[in-house]
Amino acid sequence: MSICVPKGFLLAGVHCRIKQDPRKQDLTLIMSEVPATAAGVYTQNLVCGAPVVWNRQRTPSDRIRTVVINSGVANACTGQRGLDDARKMAGLAAAACSAEEDQALVMSTGLIGEFLPMDKIEQGIMAAAVKLGRNEPSLVSAARGMMTTDTTHKLAGRTVALSGGKIQITGMAKGAAMIGPNMATMLAVILTDVKLEPDTAQSLLKAAVDDSFNCVSVEGHTSTSDSVVLLANGEAGRQPPAGADLEIFRGALDEVCVELARALPADGEGASHLISIEVSGCADRPSALQIAKTVANSALVKTAVAGADPNWGRIVSAAGYAGVPFDPARVSLRVNGFLLYQGGTPVDFDAQVVSDSIRADRDTLIQLELGEGDSCGRFWTTDLTAEYVRLNADYHT
Amino acid sequence: MSICVPKGFLLAGVHCRIKQDPRKQDLTLIMSEVPATAAGVYTQNLVCGAPVVWNRQRTPSDRIRTVVINSGVANACTGQRGLDDARKMAGLAAAACSAEEDQALVMSTGLIGEFLPMDKIEQGIMAAAVKLGRNEPSLVSAARGMMTTDTTHKLAGRTVALSGGKIQITGMAKGAAMIGPNMATMLAVILTDVKLEPDTAQSLLKAAVDDSFNCVSVEGHTSTSDSVVLLANGEAGRQPPAGADLEIFRGALDEVCVELARALPADGEGASHLISIEVSGCADRPSALQIAKTVANSALVKTAVAGADPNWGRIVSAAGYAGVPFDPARVSLRVNGFLLYQGGTPVDFDAQVVSDSIRADRDTLIQLELGEGDSCGRFWTTDLTAEYVRLNADYHT
Repeated sequence: MSICVPKGFLLAGVHCRIKQDPRKQDLTLIMSEVPATAAGVYTQNLVCGAPVVWNRQRTPSDRIRTVVINSGVANACTGQRGLDDARKMAGLAAAACSAEEDQALVMSTGLIGEFLPMDKIEQGIMAAAVKLGRNEPSLVSAARGMMTTDTTHKLAGRTVALSGGKIQITGMAKGAAMIGPNMATMLAVILTDVKLEPDTAQSLLKAAVDDSFNCVSVEGHTSTSDSVVLLANGEAGRQPPAGADLEIFRGALDEVCVELARALPADGEGASHLISIEVSGCADRPSALQIAKTVANSALVKTAVAGADPNWGRIVSAAGYAGVPFDPARVSLRVNGFLLYQGGTPVDFDAQVVSDSIRADRDTLIQLELGEGDSCGRFWTTDLTAEYVRLNADYHT
Repeated sequence: MSICVPKGFLLAGVHCRIKQDPRKQDLTLIMSEVPATAAGVYTQNLVCGAPVVWNRQRTPSDRIRTVVINSGVANACTGQRGLDDARKMAGLAAAACSAEEDQALVMSTGLIGEFLPMDKIEQGIMAAAVKLGRNEPSLVSAARGMMTTDTTHKLAGRTVALSGGKIQITGMAKGAAMIGPNMATMLAVILTDVKLEPDTAQSLLKAAVDDSFNCVSVEGHTSTSDSVVLLANGEAGRQPPAGADLEIFRGALDEVCVELARALPADGEGASHLISIEVSGCADRPSALQIAKTVANSALVKTAVAGADPNWGRIVSAAGYAGVPFDPARVSLRVNGFLLYQGGTPVDFDAQVVSDSIRADRDTLIQLELGEGDSCGRFWTTDLTAEYVRLNADYHT
């Protein structure tokens, strides 16, 4: 793992009084010294935040100069005023970077239905602009400026050698699993100094997100603001990677996305387990993902893991209602490596031993083999604890 | 409400030592004195219990004599031995009623993956056969014999006057909402002394179930054993109802199903609120039901209600990811009658007043108006409390 700021990017995270605690950053400014290629993947929720509307209209692009992010207020469900505020926020960030409004992307996360405090946002952008830096503290501050209920900032990076020289990919993300202040909004920004054409960047990002951020399920509640953007500024080489170089880059991008995505459920304040659900032996990959997602979203599976209960029935039956045809008589199931179910019938196993293995480790591995084909898919989620409910029961009022 | 045993039926509920507590019935026997028309609606889960396989092959029918039900063990995920046991159980019940194996329907609810204790089942059927009765205590015992974690038995009935005379519809159900010992299995048996043709019975039951039992969502986890069967023995009249009589019967059947269905989430041990979600103004009914179901299954909505938090953002955004197209700018939302959201933006409301109204009442009403058409649909669910998680975290081990 190698986390540093890719060439030609400057970052800052500041506190601009949206959050009450003065020690907590709540605004992040990212600048590319040259126009960068930008790609974006956004929430599919019909009810989406104003920043999503703004960014969607501006990606893919080959001229983005800045991304500005605030936490505390999501600027979602805010009507025309929200759209106007997103535009103003973009204009302020662009001005701070000597760029045009259209060269700025905007992200907001926090409570929905509230208007952005534009005076604080403006002051924050000005304060961040003078603090922009390319060292590790700047990177960490920037990663912290997007946090809401996250207990820690989330960074991942890879340095890879291409034929034209070394390039860097570094990403930051926010999203604390079980907690739902803003529907557990997930935001991520990935920066790289490689050169990419807009369409290539968009398709690489889409594929990487499909296998990472889109495989994290917390409560199945799609946020109004979920967004992942990729900026590629070409400052490490003027030629886009091709052939083997492109494959190396793709692999590194995928790794960064998976590492960030897994960090989200792992940071669930109310969660005691990070659950990985691996489904194999399916006719096709969408089927495998659908089954993995259905198991991941089962409250009964999640509470069973919280209780260290090797309740295979809940897992197998969740697969059964995923809407994917399969022959139950060919299904096998392992939890933490222990075979619990095979050929449609339960296996004789020591429940205490399996329970102990769940209790002993923060990671729980659920493996379903369908026996229908060669495709597989995986999902990550957390368990469902009483603490989760307590934290979610009255976040708002 | 009129709950009595329809003509020509005899019932009993006994304790046959599947449950540990000797005061708790765990086996129910229902007999029709004459061959009855039977219809059935069953779980769509691919992983289904052996009794579901048995019943599905035998309904609709015009010659069913008995239904035997045990609680404690679901006989699901039990392979060929489970199928053999279901057949034996049918045979024992049929013998007790001087009928043939094929004239018996079977239901089992409880832990899955365990084999039926056939010796206890046999003794239970023999004990029940000598206790068969048509009075209220027999009916209540029968309703109690199907209970698992239910805190109370569930009965509903209607006496209606048709042109040929009065007829009776009486139903019993089990299923305690939030608790998931057997995936919150829902079982219901509805008895009537009207005369029905098998196809009519099947279509009436299917329609009634679609608007009642299929509109109850607890944790979105479809059970391996969910079943509703209807027996119509014609002992109150030799002619099937037609015209206005058929409509009267249909209305009464629907009412019995809705009353039983609502009793399921209302009996959630871990739940503090029964939530009704009414979605109106949709282009078609499936769209309305899909949105209502998606809101009902949102853990964030359910925890918000548990915390008496009028968090409209969670409700509106859940609608947004239901997969049904609509214009967010036309949506309005009321909670307990208070308007919280209108035309895509939040309304200024007194959060404390709305919160107090949620806290004060066990029933919470969520009303979404989409502004897309004239169709509506409703779903019932419960809130998600810390107590629910505690109860579900280690039911099995």
